[in-house]
Amino acid sequence: MIGVDWGTSSFRAFRLGADGRVLARRAAPRGILAVEDARFAEELLRQTGDWIAEGESRVLMAGMIGSRQGWLEAPYLRCPAGAAEIAGALVRVPFEGAEVLLVPGLTDTDAAGTPEVMRGEETQLVGVLDEIGADGLACLPGSHSKWARIAVGRIDGYATYLSGEAFAALRGHTILGRMMKDGPTDPAAFDRGLARAADPGHLLHHLFGVRTLGLFGQLTEADSASYLSGLLIGHEVRAALPPGGGAVHLIGAAALCALYARAVAASGATAVTHDEDAAARGLARIGKNAAWTTPTRPT
Amino acid sequence: MIGVDWGTSSFRAFRLGADGRVLARRAAPRGILAVEDARFAEELLRQTGDWIAEGESRVLMAGMIGSRQGWLEAPYLRCPAGAAEIAGALVRVPFEGAEVLLVPGLTDTDAAGTPEVMRGEETQLVGVLDEIGADGLACLPGSHSKWARIAVGRIDGYATYLSGEAFAALRGHTILGRMMKDGPTDPAAFDRGLARAADPGHLLHHLFGVRTLGLFGQLTEADSASYLSGLLIGHEVRAALPPGGGAVHLIGAAALCALYARAVAASGATAVTHDEDAAARGLARIGKNAAWTTPTRPT
Repeated sequence: MIGVDWGTSSFRAFRLGADGRVLARRAAPRGILAVEDARFAEELLRQTGDWIAEGESRVLMAGMIGSRQGWLEAPYLRCPAGAAEIAGALVRVPFEGAEVLLVPGLTDTDAAGTPEVMRGEETQLVGVLDEIGADGLACLPGSHSKWARIAVGRIDGYATYLSGEAFAALRGHTILGRMMKDGPTDPAAFDRGLARAADPGHLLHHLFGVRTLGLFGQLTEADSASYLSGLLIGHEVRAALPPGGGAVHLIGAAALCALYARAVAASGATAVTHDEDAAARGLARIGKNAAWTTPTRPT
Repeated sequence: MIGVDWGTSSFRAFRLGADGRVLARRAAPRGILAVEDARFAEELLRQTGDWIAEGESRVLMAGMIGSRQGWLEAPYLRCPAGAAEIAGALVRVPFEGAEVLLVPGLTDTDAAGTPEVMRGEETQLVGVLDEIGADGLACLPGSHSKWARIAVGRIDGYATYLSGEAFAALRGHTILGRMMKDGPTDPAAFDRGLARAADPGHLLHHLFGVRTLGLFGQLTEADSASYLSGLLIGHEVRAALPPGGGAVHLIGAAALCALYARAVAASGATAVTHDEDAAARGLARIGKNAAWTTPTRPT
């Protein structure tokens, strides 16, 4: 089977063995926004045509490719949902030469009734369900960080935080960014931001402090971006963690997960980090549960 | 006396009678960032030279003109401070033809030791001290909203919230803004944002809801910006208000003060609105306390 994680800005494909192992992989900066005139079929062939020619007959795709801006809109499935429920709600995409199915996104509502959406993260979550066990808490950090509760081996519900996108907007388009130099994240400055997030006062007040600390020479231009990052991630983690700590399963890019692990530890909880191949494992597991109509390739 | 409120983006001058009354006024989009090569003396003459020629010999200036980016840096004065303390810390600016003094900004530190800065707002606050009385709470909404505690007729301390600038950055440079149409603030949508600010959950989570409500057709493109405004102002007001309500003195542009008054009322407190001439009254009052070396013009 071919598994595809097709997001807004990137395309990743995995050639998966019957046992779910990744036999080969491919990545390209061909997210759905980069595909001209929505020619997704052509793009899929360009990226994986050789695998299909070699006999792969099944393609399972997850991510924004199933959104209104993607190939075909796969309606959101409601939480709680696990691999079986997701596999039961796959959407078929017309395509020559292989059977192509789309993983639906997941929706939920918070306590006040405001809706939630995810597309792609549900597949990564399914990929770590075995490692999490029956119950737990998982976080997928990013532009729109997702915090998911796992219960009885399914995704029970989740909440999204706009931290990553807020960081980029505040850094790039407010007075705070004028005092920031580019560079790798400085751990000490990041930790100062984390500590600040634990102070009394609202985030909107703490944000102004990024400026005043710089004005008073208490924060250098080289350290300001790391401090702001720690401040926002610290606020997010403190808000998302249930009282009493416990384990948080982090899924995503290693560098970002390392920062979140620091924030989780600073809040008295324990971070367990998973790699980005969670998507491949999730695709394999959902694919195993799917009602394919074509036979798998001869092995 | 001539009073000048010279900020980052605008210049306002008041010709003030001995009793503090505004005899004439002038405004121009000539904030300090618009003055080429820091030629502030020329700009002051261009805006108020006729008044000086008619015999005005004293000019008192407040705002960002006293910052590092302005004419001359007037060191921050520490809270608590009232009209007398501020008048005792004015900074003299070399200028031909009139005596020019600068009002210093005020600094403070919050409970965790993070510094605060204001320039210009201290003068507006001094302008409403009589109306507030000995003790009270005042708010100057804007890009960097200030919440000041008044005690024994002085500015006792204050806290800044980055709400206005955060709104602009989030609206202009995140996915939230892509679903927003320009237009006047819609009171019902603003109130929905205010109500959302009272829900459980962190601002960073509430922000993502602006997107999902739009995706699910529960918030129109015409209403989204008003909702986001209510959400941010609601968070700010709820964080800044002490428990138990009471009165909040709002000082600033009428339209923005009206929105803050709605948020204050929704939080169970009472808003008292003051107009922007608070700056003129503050300049007059500080000027009355100042140690001028030139005689006032003959009346």
